[in-house]
Amino acid sequence: MRFEHETGAPVLVLNDEQSWELLTHTAHGRVATTVAGMIDIVPVNYAVHKGNIYLRTAPGNKLASMVVNSSIALEADGILSDEAWSVVVHGTAEILEHEADINEARESGVTPWAQTVKDFWIRVTVDSISGRHFILGEQPEMI
Amino acid sequence: MRFEHETGAPVLVLNDEQSWELLTHTAHGRVATTVAGMIDIVPVNYAVHKGNIYLRTAPGNKLASMVVNSSIALEADGILSDEAWSVVVHGTAEILEHEADINEARESGVTPWAQTVKDFWIRVTVDSISGRHFILGEQPEMI
Repeated sequence: MRFEHETGAPVLVLNDEQSWELLTHTAHGRVATTVAGMIDIVPVNYAVHKGNIYLRTAPGNKLASMVVNSSIALEADGILSDEAWSVVVHGTAEILEHEADINEARESGVTPWAQTVKDFWIRVTVDSISGRHFILGEQPEMI
Repeated sequence: MRFEHETGAPVLVLNDEQSWELLTHTAHGRVATTVAGMIDIVPVNYAVHKGNIYLRTAPGNKLASMVVNSSIALEADGILSDEAWSVVVHGTAEILEHEADINEARESGVTPWAQTVKDFWIRVTVDSISGRHFILGEQPEMI
């Protein structure tokens, strides 16, 4: 994907289509949410499938306690030598209990990060998505 | 740094020293916090200096509004083909106003992510740090 910045503008706000494209072609991100009033972040593997985002985790894992029917933000980014991008999704996470939902989650092909037994499937329903693309480099001199 | 997992254990909980070491040798992370009850994440460049974490951002930037004297979580991670790590810090962020504090921030050498004019310096005072190291791979078969 090519990103056309206005001349000299280091930050480009991406549209939804561009943001979904970047999110879909990445498998690693971070989920942030609030547990008992305390904010927390965990790294996750995820997969996008039919407009939802699927995660997989182990029972007792921090992520499982974080996402019980709660509002979350999920971020994925990519950094190259001279450019970077970041996509943030706001949505609602739920642990899946019904076989039909879990089958849908399996179809996403999401793979867990570490080789522990994982049998919680989590679906994130997306409320909003935003993305930015950055040209990296030195900052302009302050006058 | 070598990480010695117990035989067969895919996840290793890191001690504070190991977590600081990984955090210090990385420059890119994400800050999560709550703004008006809504959780958000932004990518950041940071630097560790004398036990604090420094960020730099532009006036009007989302990060600046996110971190006004607020509790934040900051995450950094690294992913190789067969291993990964993630460090999470909980702390309090404040925008620096006094010259002595800003000079301290400058000494951290933190560079901004995009080449916009940045003149907000942010210090994160760390309350806690945790880290995990993962051996990546297929999950064990469920019986």
